[in-house]
Amino acid sequence: MLRQSQHELVFETGNRALYEFTAQLEGLVRQAGMQTGLVTLHLQHTSASLLIQENADPEVRRDLERFFARLVRDGDPLFRHTAEGTDDMPAHIRTALTAVNLSIPIIDGNLALGTWQGIYLWEHRTQPHTRRLVVHLLGE
Amino acid sequence: MLRQSQHELVFETGNRALYEFTAQLEGLVRQAGMQTGLVTLHLQHTSASLLIQENADPEVRRDLERFFARLVRDGDPLFRHTAEGTDDMPAHIRTALTAVNLSIPIIDGNLALGTWQGIYLWEHRTQPHTRRLVVHLLGE
Amino acid sequence: MLRQSQHELVFETGNRALYEFTAQLEGLVRQAGMQTGLVTLHLQHTSASLLIQENADPEVRRDLERFFARLVRDGDPLFRHTAEGTDDMPAHIRTALTAVNLSIPIIDGNLALGTWQGIYLWEHRTQPHTRRLVVHLLGE
Repeated sequence: MLRQSQHELVFETGNRALYEFTAQLEGLVRQAGMQTGLVTLHLQHTSASLLIQENADPEVRRDLERFFARLVRDGDPLFRHTAEGTDDMPAHIRTALTAVNLSIPIIDGNLALGTWQGIYLWEHRTQPHTRRLVVHLLGE
Repeated sequence: MLRQSQHELVFETGNRALYEFTAQLEGLVRQAGMQTGLVTLHLQHTSASLLIQENADPEVRRDLERFFARLVRDGDPLFRHTAEGTDDMPAHIRTALTAVNLSIPIIDGNLALGTWQGIYLWEHRTQPHTRRLVVHLLGE
Repeated sequence: MLRQSQHELVFETGNRALYEFTAQLEGLVRQAGMQTGLVTLHLQHTSASLLIQENADPEVRRDLERFFARLVRDGDPLFRHTAEGTDDMPAHIRTALTAVNLSIPIIDGNLALGTWQGIYLWEHRTQPHTRRLVVHLLGE
């Protein structure tokens, strides 16, 4: 019989970077005891996002960071929303260019991720923040 | 017992801009009487998209618009799909860079949005359009 | 009564391009016999992505490809993750800028796509690859 459950994960981020939480999410799925189903993630923020990316070579994450820093420049004179700092509007744009939602099927009790896929919280602000993630589990 | 229901929201957009519909969607969820669940949105277009962004300072939306207008220039000579106007191919690209799907959990009968999160339809064409959004509700 | 089922679609891609699989996915939905529901797609890779885009004028896909090739340049000296080829890090970034998840409602036994929407696998590597897509169906 299909059932659902909801959970919250809270992260304390440091500086602007990608934070992997694949293992934590797998723990939640195991605890819920679902063999087949669907995990939906919703990050409750507008200046941090969710990303599935390669978790092998850490240089991939640094190149992602370098690319986005060049694409959306802190302190760009184009921006007028500047009261919260030069990194704030770039953080909103980086969030718009990525996503705050992800959906991952559960197969045989595990997240159906590919060999190289890790799930990351991408902190786009340069200062530490508390970030809240709602996890919706559906399955049996 | 888990159940689902489907709805359609129709929007008449004006010019290229972000249109908030958080309250309308909250009304739908309330009407469906679901306390716990998941809302999935699908916009049936390729030149408009869905975005969760800050709904406090309106300058954030104007900066988003300014940034995307500079990143994907109307009338860029790179484009060959130009028969429908200089803003048409940029509208497809802006849609590809954002999303036409969103998923938001329902907690205690409300959308599980963060304090500053609003849900927007982003019209990327410069002329008014009729836009159709399919809403899938799952819950109990 | 709500039920779920899971499936896998395997694609053999050629070069960097958009590959439509709308008909294949519609076949899966028909076979599952669901009239009302939700399809969730998860691509198990970090250098290919999923995109819903116009399936009328093929020039739209070529313009998308041209735009992304200019935005994220193969061999850009910014990148340090270069061991797997000059197109590898750009492929990761193009994946981050688009998505590996999609959700499409099922209405009257069909995918609730708009008139011009097609579902594509976007191969971002320049060489052929085997790509695995997990399909989660929920419905009745």
